[in-house]
Amino acid sequence: MGGSRAPRSARALEFFQHQGALELLVFNFLLILTILTIWLFKNRRFRFLHETGGAMVYGLVMGLVIRYATKSYEVEDGAVYDCESLTNSPTTLLINVTDHVYQYEYRGEINKHNINNEKGNAMLQKMTFDPEVFFNVLLPPIIFHAGYSLKKRHFFRNLGTILTYAFLGTAISCIVIGLVMYGFVKAMMQLGQIQAGDFHFTDCLFFGSLMSATDPVTVLAIFHELHVDTDLYTLLFGESVLNDAVAIVLTYSISIYSPKENPNAFDAAAFFQCVGNFLGIFAGSFAMGSGYAVITALISFLCEFPMLETGLFFLLSWSAFLSAEAAGLTGIVAVLFCGVTQAHYTYNNLSEECKLRTKQLFEFMNFLAENFIFCYMGLALFTFQNHIFNALFICGAVISIFVARACNIYPLTFFLNLGRKRRIPWNFQHMMMFSGLRGAIAFALAIRDTDSQPKQMMFTTTLLVVFFTVWVFGGGTTPMLAWLQIRVGVDPDQDLKDLPANQRSENPTQGSTKEESAHLFRIWYGFDHKYPLPCLHFLLKLEI
Amino acid sequence: MGGSRAPRSARALEFFQHQGALELLVFNFLLILTILTIWLFKNRRFRFLHETGGAMVYGLVMGLVIRYATKSYEVEDGAVYDCESLTNSPTTLLINVTDHVYQYEYRGEINKHNINNEKGNAMLQKMTFDPEVFFNVLLPPIIFHAGYSLKKRHFFRNLGTILTYAFLGTAISCIVIGLVMYGFVKAMMQLGQIQAGDFHFTDCLFFGSLMSATDPVTVLAIFHELHVDTDLYTLLFGESVLNDAVAIVLTYSISIYSPKENPNAFDAAAFFQCVGNFLGIFAGSFAMGSGYAVITALISFLCEFPMLETGLFFLLSWSAFLSAEAAGLTGIVAVLFCGVTQAHYTYNNLSEECKLRTKQLFEFMNFLAENFIFCYMGLALFTFQNHIFNALFICGAVISIFVARACNIYPLTFFLNLGRKRRIPWNFQHMMMFSGLRGAIAFALAIRDTDSQPKQMMFTTTLLVVFFTVWVFGGGTTPMLAWLQIRVGVDPDQDLKDLPANQRSENPTQGSTKEESAHLFRIWYGFDHKYPLPCLHFLLKLEI
Repeated sequence: MGGSRAPRSARALEFFQHQGALELLVFNFLLILTILTIWLFKNRRFRFLHETGGAMVYGLVMGLVIRYATKSYEVEDGAVYDCESLTNSPTTLLINVTDHVYQYEYRGEINKHNINNEKGNAMLQKMTFDPEVFFNVLLPPIIFHAGYSLKKRHFFRNLGTILTYAFLGTAISCIVIGLVMYGFVKAMMQLGQIQAGDFHFTDCLFFGSLMSATDPVTVLAIFHELHVDTDLYTLLFGESVLNDAVAIVLTYSISIYSPKENPNAFDAAAFFQCVGNFLGIFAGSFAMGSGYAVITALISFLCEFPMLETGLFFLLSWSAFLSAEAAGLTGIVAVLFCGVTQAHYTYNNLSEECKLRTKQLFEFMNFLAENFIFCYMGLALFTFQNHIFNALFICGAVISIFVARACNIYPLTFFLNLGRKRRIPWNFQHMMMFSGLRGAIAFALAIRDTDSQPKQMMFTTTLLVVFFTVWVFGGGTTPMLAWLQIRVGVDPDQDLKDLPANQRSENPTQGSTKEESAHLFRIWYGFDHKYPLPCLHFLLKLEI
Repeated sequence: MGGSRAPRSARALEFFQHQGALELLVFNFLLILTILTIWLFKNRRFRFLHETGGAMVYGLVMGLVIRYATKSYEVEDGAVYDCESLTNSPTTLLINVTDHVYQYEYRGEINKHNINNEKGNAMLQKMTFDPEVFFNVLLPPIIFHAGYSLKKRHFFRNLGTILTYAFLGTAISCIVIGLVMYGFVKAMMQLGQIQAGDFHFTDCLFFGSLMSATDPVTVLAIFHELHVDTDLYTLLFGESVLNDAVAIVLTYSISIYSPKENPNAFDAAAFFQCVGNFLGIFAGSFAMGSGYAVITALISFLCEFPMLETGLFFLLSWSAFLSAEAAGLTGIVAVLFCGVTQAHYTYNNLSEECKLRTKQLFEFMNFLAENFIFCYMGLALFTFQNHIFNALFICGAVISIFVARACNIYPLTFFLNLGRKRRIPWNFQHMMMFSGLRGAIAFALAIRDTDSQPKQMMFTTTLLVVFFTVWVFGGGTTPMLAWLQIRVGVDPDQDLKDLPANQRSENPTQGSTKEESAHLFRIWYGFDHKYPLPCLHFLLKLEI
């Protein structure tokens, strides 16, 4: 992301330029349909199709319509100039040598020059927009909301476990998927489906890392609705939130892995540089995000004016994202940890009304952004121009994500259970295995780079994997819960009351003495209460 | 705004493309400063500087810094190609023949070709963005919020008066300003400051129409805070909201006024076409906006799920804007009447929580957008590249807006008082005269077209007039209220209780029998209760 980040985020909303009122209207229409469907389903207590699943269905349908019901065109409106005429050329002249048609407007003049007058469909062009928009507009509110709505106490009680799944688990999953896919790629080469040499092991690892971002939004929604056991919910939620961050940075680190000699050989230097990048960017983004959150924690003096409070909260959280981008870090990771820290430090300092407002605001933004993305996914299956469907690669992907998920959950849980007082039972493990859905992040990472053929193949495959997992596993959640006999209808507070008194107490260190994460957690907690919180309270006193 | 509207709104957020993370960060920083200042002032009960005024101050300071503290540059990064190289040219190549430098990115490649390598300041370039963004991103939430927060009953009790001020008043003000300015322009021609023939009477009318959009946000905020007499508040608020709509459409109609022969001669055909455009666009936008609002009024069946309800409310309101744009009407006018109609039909159908959520959501968006615009105004004084300061023209503008305001308020009020049972007292009239501030709309209309020298002169002047009115009159509101002995601390409901019982009753027709607008209002009210409302209630019954 390096130096090129700022210009990238500068292109953030480029797509609005290409998107006219009509195109945005189409998305509005799809979202309205989705909302009405969700309402119908909620009313009828249908749980086999989640809102995101519905959004994808409508996206698909609309994609079909646009693909086959709208006319294609030759190059239209805008004179075609010879180079000679450049001396007296119009304000701006865009020469486009791809099969895409862009129009660049300035003061109403449109001048378009499409060198290879390849036929294209205007609507398809407009409906396909710059992938950067996901990372700069749509994902930040989703990720922030996820961080901001982490159930604090349960999260910290299981901190160690969640971190293990998020870091070790994602690494395992990335490597396993990479290896399995490399096997399939070799097979494809044998069958002559792809030329040897245009698909390296690093490409497989790249696919592995982007495929490691799980997004069980469907499952979690049902868990939330049915009040499934809080520990299971927290484990799954915490893992999915953190492994997004890990997967994003990992994907980037791998994408810039550049060995000196031939790409297949292992290059120690490049490898360690890659690891260094990963750690550097991750740590930097973490610091940036939590830094801004700590500043935000001081705004409680605004509590008389919830409006201003909310505004400041929003602006500072957004600044965390922008600063990270400007500094060449990953804004999404920054905004995630900003959200987590806001929930821990800021939330309690906010006025009651501001608590409500911020929660509702980000819930709302999250809702719109999420459904927009899933709509777009459905649409992309038909509107994206360079799909490469390869049966073998798709089968490989489906198999590999299961193998990887298994190698991630079961062994790690085994070792974690050695340490945990409250062991993670088998049915929980199976449920976590089952909840390895893929979603928005994997999609966004895949669509970000679709230049080369391997990347296009990966994008198509990712899209199908998302459809498959969201519809099949998302739909199968409720029966699965019943089959695994996982208790539902749990009240989280009740859940805490079940623990011995000292675990209920406000001081989580005592609570966690019985927990696996006690040691790690006590260190953090000790530091937390020795430095940041007292400082904040001191500063807050100063203000009052 | 004809065929060119859709592509215009397509350019909606073009500026985000040019704006990098760093530039957005600057605006965030300014808004944060503004919020802190507002808090300080509210705390200290300072009323001489309103938040928007503060935002402008910070904008000015930041503009100064950017103007004089950042370095200018030659054409940088990006190879310069000869036409010969076009055969093997990069993905996209932008040839730019203005003194502006655009960069067009595609797949990370930047190729820039600036034919006249004029020196420029990169930061200034980035800080100046496409004016369409005001009409497509920042103004809609402001305008919608204004419409949505009209105090319904008081508004309809004074409907006739407000409509008179909004339509007749704006027309008068437009013509008067036009005439006065034409006088000054003639004088400037005598003094040889401008060439005869490059400043027509239509230009003066254009300036008059954009200057007729009053925006007493500062005054209204103080009224609200001090609970000034509700009728005065309603008159002022209603007028300012509606005359924005009138001014916007009027400005457009005048801008496309194209007489056959010389522009100074009166061309009946062109004139009537201009009037026809005005009526057509206004009526169309009105229908579009209220149409969507009536649809929205049917969503109350979602009341169990405030989240979905809010989402649908938001999407439908946005669709009103987009549809109007796509249909070649003015989205802002559509969204204004959508807001008014939402407040009348939809609001009462919403669940309590959704009422709160929608109010807070649009309040929040309005807050951010408004302060952003005023920040940008301050910034624009230094970052905008083509200012033309003309003392005579500026004096003319200041004088003309006073004359125009006087010719608008006093005569109209005189005639209205003949009809009104409850006359508008002198101190109210003086206060309305005093409250003729200019703001966001006038600015947005002026910045939309700054190609020709006259237009640039108008923009510079508008900017200064906004500063002057907001700071001087905004600051002087509280003393003025005291001096005019206008009663403050009025509770609107109390205010209604003062009326005879039949006026308090829920049925406004009885209430308005004592009012000037009774006749006009009863027609509307009769229609309203004969057709739309019963239909809605019928449909709502069907749903339940």
